[in-house]
Amino acid sequence: MAIEKILLEHGSGGQATSRLLEEVILPVLGEVPLLDSALLETQSLKGLAFTTDSFVVDPIFFPGGDIGSLAVHGTVNDLAMVGATPLFLSVALILEEGLEVATLRKVLSSLAQAAREAGVRVICGDTKVVPRGKGDKVFINTTGLGRLNAWRPAPKSLNPGDKVIVSGPIADHGLTILAAREGLGLEGLKSDSQALHRVVLPLLEEYGSRIKLLRDPTRGGLASVLHEFAAESGRSFRLEEEKIPVRPEVRAGCEILGLDPLYLACEGRFVAVCAPEAAEEILAFLKGFEATAAASLIGEVVSADDFPVLLETRVGGLRPVPPLSGEPLPRIC
Amino acid sequence: MAIEKILLEHGSGGQATSRLLEEVILPVLGEVPLLDSALLETQSLKGLAFTTDSFVVDPIFFPGGDIGSLAVHGTVNDLAMVGATPLFLSVALILEEGLEVATLRKVLSSLAQAAREAGVRVICGDTKVVPRGKGDKVFINTTGLGRLNAWRPAPKSLNPGDKVIVSGPIADHGLTILAAREGLGLEGLKSDSQALHRVVLPLLEEYGSRIKLLRDPTRGGLASVLHEFAAESGRSFRLEEEKIPVRPEVRAGCEILGLDPLYLACEGRFVAVCAPEAAEEILAFLKGFEATAAASLIGEVVSADDFPVLLETRVGGLRPVPPLSGEPLPRIC
Repeated sequence: MAIEKILLEHGSGGQATSRLLEEVILPVLGEVPLLDSALLETQSLKGLAFTTDSFVVDPIFFPGGDIGSLAVHGTVNDLAMVGATPLFLSVALILEEGLEVATLRKVLSSLAQAAREAGVRVICGDTKVVPRGKGDKVFINTTGLGRLNAWRPAPKSLNPGDKVIVSGPIADHGLTILAAREGLGLEGLKSDSQALHRVVLPLLEEYGSRIKLLRDPTRGGLASVLHEFAAESGRSFRLEEEKIPVRPEVRAGCEILGLDPLYLACEGRFVAVCAPEAAEEILAFLKGFEATAAASLIGEVVSADDFPVLLETRVGGLRPVPPLSGEPLPRIC
Repeated sequence: MAIEKILLEHGSGGQATSRLLEEVILPVLGEVPLLDSALLETQSLKGLAFTTDSFVVDPIFFPGGDIGSLAVHGTVNDLAMVGATPLFLSVALILEEGLEVATLRKVLSSLAQAAREAGVRVICGDTKVVPRGKGDKVFINTTGLGRLNAWRPAPKSLNPGDKVIVSGPIADHGLTILAAREGLGLEGLKSDSQALHRVVLPLLEEYGSRIKLLRDPTRGGLASVLHEFAAESGRSFRLEEEKIPVRPEVRAGCEILGLDPLYLACEGRFVAVCAPEAAEEILAFLKGFEATAAASLIGEVVSADDFPVLLETRVGGLRPVPPLSGEPLPRIC
């Protein structure tokens, strides 16, 4: 059935987002190769990488960050994921009438600090105001410019036996946002929002020839990234559930709420597919950085299967991980 | 008194916007030279120009255009105003839950057509969905990348006697949006929204050494651009009211509504300040293009005066044109 109305799930990063892109957006913007950060959203401009993201997270302040720091980390990470050195950001604000200026100042301070820490410069901006009830406090678009380095993704070079590494525990950001929004009172949750380029760029410098794919599991989580990898490579993935790092507080929260951490967003993690002989060395390299100290080898590439993503469960079974359908958690970024 | 809450007027492009920038945004984003398209919002990146704008116009369809075409024209023109050749755009959508897909398709078709006509490529994008009542149909951010050419603005080189040229009738866009939003039933109104680079770039190629300042009078209108020019140059401006082109339908509508066209937005006009000896030749050059066929020499630079912008009225008086305060017309772009 054709899509007739925009639903929240169209922003999920899962199947509904793909359908919106494939059925509505891409056919109209005919010459556009890509139109969502769930797809690869950067492109070389004579050695430059260019990426855009709007942030509409609710609530705007949450444990471990806020919409300001997130707007920097998200775009910096999108550049890092194509192997680009982040250089410049634009910042465009859509403010809701009635927003407290103290709130705006806090968000901007956080944004400025995140930019300083990441070594990127905010060089242009825009401010719009919409009437009360036509926005929600503050939305931020950041568009990033970076310098492309030598590394390029190589989805077609994936072979059975290639290893999948995740850079740290998954699902912290998604569950933290949900708990903060709904006032769930779950203890010990904190977003993983952080800039990754200070790990990723040296990683690619050192091991780039052995790293075939790289992506941050934001909207739609780890499961969605692996489905994207499967679609791009024509291969399938087999993961070991017990190797996938999930913090105990996050696991407990997911169990209480009936959520699968495989679908929850991270904002400071990445997934890499690498040649098998380099996997242990890469893992050791990542463990040397605070941001990726809990990196883990979680599975491997297998020949194309009916199910693009398979999970060996803790109890020894094998279950397919379907693509995300519907919207478990709107507005997490 | 310090600003405590965001008001609609903070998005006006006038004094309230300047105060928000100066008191709240720029002090926090300390290293940021500029943070609104009302200021100069582009910067060279090794020969590149970079500019961002979010579009929140209400209604999204209006005579002469829609939010899709406007989102292309606005950003293309921001690049043209710094003398850059527009090359690439990012497009980030914030959609409200419940938006009709037919509406989205219409907006995107218009955006794609405007981009094709302007010769710019949309190369990356993002799509977010917010719940009903937390957005308004569709907001679009476009961020543009262009190649800087030789021309640079020279506000400090302004001399008394330099001429001010406007490229066509003013206030069409602003009044059209207001009339469409309020259902005023004024006849013959149509937005002037159009891309200007196909005139501006040849103009600068030919007469760049004699053109000292260039800007598009969007939010805040012609009056606001001249106040910006005055602040940047340390000079004042004297305009002749009868030389300022205003279409009869626009003049009539403004009279009925008690609006001053000097403060209403254009989205397809520019103001240039040039050396006096080149003014007539530049005017003739502009009249050779359809987009600027009604260009007019409207006044000149004078020594710094207590009033940065003075208007010789039709009846022979001289009145100061104050900076825009408050918000006559929210969400015109």
